[in-house]
Amino acid sequence: MITGKNYIGTKMSAGGSKIFKTFNPVSNIENEYEFYEASTEEIDLAVASAWKAFGSYQDYSGERKSEFLNAIADEIEALGDTLINTYCSESGLPQGRAMGERGRTMFQLRTFADLVKKGDWVDAYIDTAQPDRAPVPKPDIRKMMIPLGPVVVFGASNFPLAYSTAGGDTAAALAAGCPVIVKSHPMHAGTSELVSSAIIKAANRTGMPEGVFSNLNSSGIEVGVQLVQHPQVKAVGFTGSIRGGRALYDLASKREEPIPVFAEMGSVNPVVFLPEALKQRGEALAKTYAGSVTLGTGQFCTNPGLLLGIKGKDLDYFITRLSEEIVLIEPGCMLHPNIIGAYEKNKEKALAYNELKLVSEYDNEIGDNIARQAVTTVEGNVFLDNPALHQEVFGPFTMVVQCKDKEQLEAIILKLEGQLTGTLIAGGNEAVAFNGVIEALRNRVGRIIFNGVPTGVEVCPSMVHGGPYPASTDSRFTAVGINSIKRWVRPFSYQDWPNKLLPEALKNENPLGIMRFVNNQLSADSV
Amino acid sequence: MITGKNYIGTKMSAGGSKIFKTFNPVSNIENEYEFYEASTEEIDLAVASAWKAFGSYQDYSGERKSEFLNAIADEIEALGDTLINTYCSESGLPQGRAMGERGRTMFQLRTFADLVKKGDWVDAYIDTAQPDRAPVPKPDIRKMMIPLGPVVVFGASNFPLAYSTAGGDTAAALAAGCPVIVKSHPMHAGTSELVSSAIIKAANRTGMPEGVFSNLNSSGIEVGVQLVQHPQVKAVGFTGSIRGGRALYDLASKREEPIPVFAEMGSVNPVVFLPEALKQRGEALAKTYAGSVTLGTGQFCTNPGLLLGIKGKDLDYFITRLSEEIVLIEPGCMLHPNIIGAYEKNKEKALAYNELKLVSEYDNEIGDNIARQAVTTVEGNVFLDNPALHQEVFGPFTMVVQCKDKEQLEAIILKLEGQLTGTLIAGGNEAVAFNGVIEALRNRVGRIIFNGVPTGVEVCPSMVHGGPYPASTDSRFTAVGINSIKRWVRPFSYQDWPNKLLPEALKNENPLGIMRFVNNQLSADSV
Repeated sequence: MITGKNYIGTKMSAGGSKIFKTFNPVSNIENEYEFYEASTEEIDLAVASAWKAFGSYQDYSGERKSEFLNAIADEIEALGDTLINTYCSESGLPQGRAMGERGRTMFQLRTFADLVKKGDWVDAYIDTAQPDRAPVPKPDIRKMMIPLGPVVVFGASNFPLAYSTAGGDTAAALAAGCPVIVKSHPMHAGTSELVSSAIIKAANRTGMPEGVFSNLNSSGIEVGVQLVQHPQVKAVGFTGSIRGGRALYDLASKREEPIPVFAEMGSVNPVVFLPEALKQRGEALAKTYAGSVTLGTGQFCTNPGLLLGIKGKDLDYFITRLSEEIVLIEPGCMLHPNIIGAYEKNKEKALAYNELKLVSEYDNEIGDNIARQAVTTVEGNVFLDNPALHQEVFGPFTMVVQCKDKEQLEAIILKLEGQLTGTLIAGGNEAVAFNGVIEALRNRVGRIIFNGVPTGVEVCPSMVHGGPYPASTDSRFTAVGINSIKRWVRPFSYQDWPNKLLPEALKNENPLGIMRFVNNQLSADSV
Repeated sequence: MITGKNYIGTKMSAGGSKIFKTFNPVSNIENEYEFYEASTEEIDLAVASAWKAFGSYQDYSGERKSEFLNAIADEIEALGDTLINTYCSESGLPQGRAMGERGRTMFQLRTFADLVKKGDWVDAYIDTAQPDRAPVPKPDIRKMMIPLGPVVVFGASNFPLAYSTAGGDTAAALAAGCPVIVKSHPMHAGTSELVSSAIIKAANRTGMPEGVFSNLNSSGIEVGVQLVQHPQVKAVGFTGSIRGGRALYDLASKREEPIPVFAEMGSVNPVVFLPEALKQRGEALAKTYAGSVTLGTGQFCTNPGLLLGIKGKDLDYFITRLSEEIVLIEPGCMLHPNIIGAYEKNKEKALAYNELKLVSEYDNEIGDNIARQAVTTVEGNVFLDNPALHQEVFGPFTMVVQCKDKEQLEAIILKLEGQLTGTLIAGGNEAVAFNGVIEALRNRVGRIIFNGVPTGVEVCPSMVHGGPYPASTDSRFTAVGINSIKRWVRPFSYQDWPNKLLPEALKNENPLGIMRFVNNQLSADSV
């Protein structure tokens, strides 16, 4: 049952006077429930409660945190069809996608549960004392990762589950030992409340401290601003637009105590089609990319919005076939009237440049909130000189840039902003001859793909989801995979600390049996 | 031979019109050499050159980078007495300290040489493909650390060698594969030029690309500001004051593309003296701490500037004995008239608060630039309510806070700003009864010490030199030890990338023989 209230820890609260509703883009009407935007008092209470919880939660064993995370996954599953139906009614995304995303969310939670249960992630180092060293004795020093403090997570519009309330940021922060305050996305406040109820149930069931999790509603930016400025908030996770992410980053940087903001923002995910590949597989590539551009109605941060090739008949053929294929695909519903509004506006803005040609656009009759997928093309020199054309058009839109030659292709890549991904489509051995292009791409992206598509972000330890600004605000961390836990921790040293007062991970006898660097040798032995 | 010129890569350049000299605080006169402040053109050239060098240097093997780093250490040693004498003439620090710091600098360089030669530091992960996985095949994904790009390092006033031109930041950045541009500290521009000559010799001898290292002079802030704002600079290392570090952080945050600033700033390094310890060892502790407070004339970032105890006769005795011991110590010369000027001003400012009592101050006759060490004391409640007293007085100064009880002690620690270190002095088993104090301390510092002194930062993998703001701008990294290399790198994924095009660290056959996580198992085997 959705109540529209905020979760301040385990307490449900509706103290604010501002009310809003979510919207069903498929039926094009508002959903029934009314949500209460969090008041300043509620925000302060949630943070104070998280801060208090941090006092104990930071020292909970991996075993206990693991129970909590697994319990969250169980409770999310137990929400059953209620969750799936709410998800669909608040996003316009199909049931299959909802179920897939729920699976991904549970997988992420269980992966972090395994990680903290195993315990090695704390990156333990032990350098033992050398009392006889000259000229001064060497102390005993031991180091491990400890949590930063309360983390604020902003729900993402395009992933109501996997990058929202109990998504990757929340799972990683809870695993690290940080309490989490979610600022739910206004487009799916109901989904967020349901998931929050699962988290709270799990917290109660596994004996977590009051305040380890809160969920706050808001339709505007005020709640988020207050949270990021709160002195007891120590880090922020965000997935969304460059404008939104940058605004949070700027707020956090201006604090008396600046805090890290991990914002995963926009990307056009350049794909380079080398000549040989286009010659050999133009037809197949057109089909594959028509699918990738329109997947999830183009609402993925890894959507291929920029296709680069060298001018010629093979590229012409690819453009023609891509255009034909893309209009055959049944157009999809976008997440919200605001999202499709922005899509249409940004498409129009790009096409206002005469040099950008619309090659094809779905032009049968369509319903409300349905996005017409589009293929556009432009000459390399025009693209090179017009940074406005480098901007993302969030939706099922792509731009094929026809480069004069290899040098122009490389020059264009060098001029791109930071990207989440870059893809190289190559035939035979031709990649070797394009080393400069590959190097240029590597310096602009966080992940490079060979003969594939950028959509589809595998949840695994090798994944980097992030990249040079503005793909993310801090390219030194990934937002996906177990290493994303590193965003919420800091290293901490104990010098000459008595064994019995050390945390388990650093005790001589290695009671957790974890791998540690002992005097620079990796070992699970006791010291 | 000191020329006063800048190093723009291997080229010596004196294009600017602004000239300055360094100062010998011991003889209280200017040193003879004139230094040419870098001009805007020289700054641009140095960065362009670093950017170009990055194109190739980022892919140099660990073996080659290791040769370079070891060669730097050799060439620094080869500078012999010239370096030691210049160091002393520009810092007023004694020869023994100069030689110790040179040893530390060489040790750091050689430690990073070993690290990159071994190669495991790239943190390689490999998740192999599962082509038959349903519903979608799993791609092959491999991840490793890659360098960020050109790094700007600011020399530190108080460590002309170990935290300056070829110090920890530079060694770590070069090891990571990042070219370095040093903004030398104006107080020891000659030392910096000598060390730069060693780096350039080493670069030539080991075939490093032009621009891998530059050294720029300046007496004011303009050169640093231009460097931090330059679009092709990708990260910044700084050791110095909170005001200076915060200014650089703010500049970097406001860039179109924000970049990480790793500033290691001020700290008062609180030391908690528990009652039993004071009772048992008040005499010995007073002697030890008189030494620690005055070490290097109090010019260490880990200097114990804040001593906390619970009111009573044992604390009274400790204060008396500390005061007696500290005035027996021969006062030392500070780095520069500006530094001693700031010391005297800050001491005066603190003592302007009537509640802060000067217990003792060295009051024999002293020479120019010699600092009078001082012990002060204040009541717990006064300290708690006056944040101005929490500020560092950089120099041989300490403040003993007399707390009413355990609760006030804990409350004071909770109210402190972030610190590099916290120290607990405990007798017998009393630490266990002060768990709240320990927890509070842990949340405010980067390193916690038991029954020791905070001065002395061991260079080893377990060391954390850094801490919550304002001890450093990013507590998620250490500035000392091999893990400080992590500041200058980002993770990067290759998806389905052909084996022959992969970097050595990620190739199937593991030609470097490094440890890698292969399908989540640590192994040095081939795939």
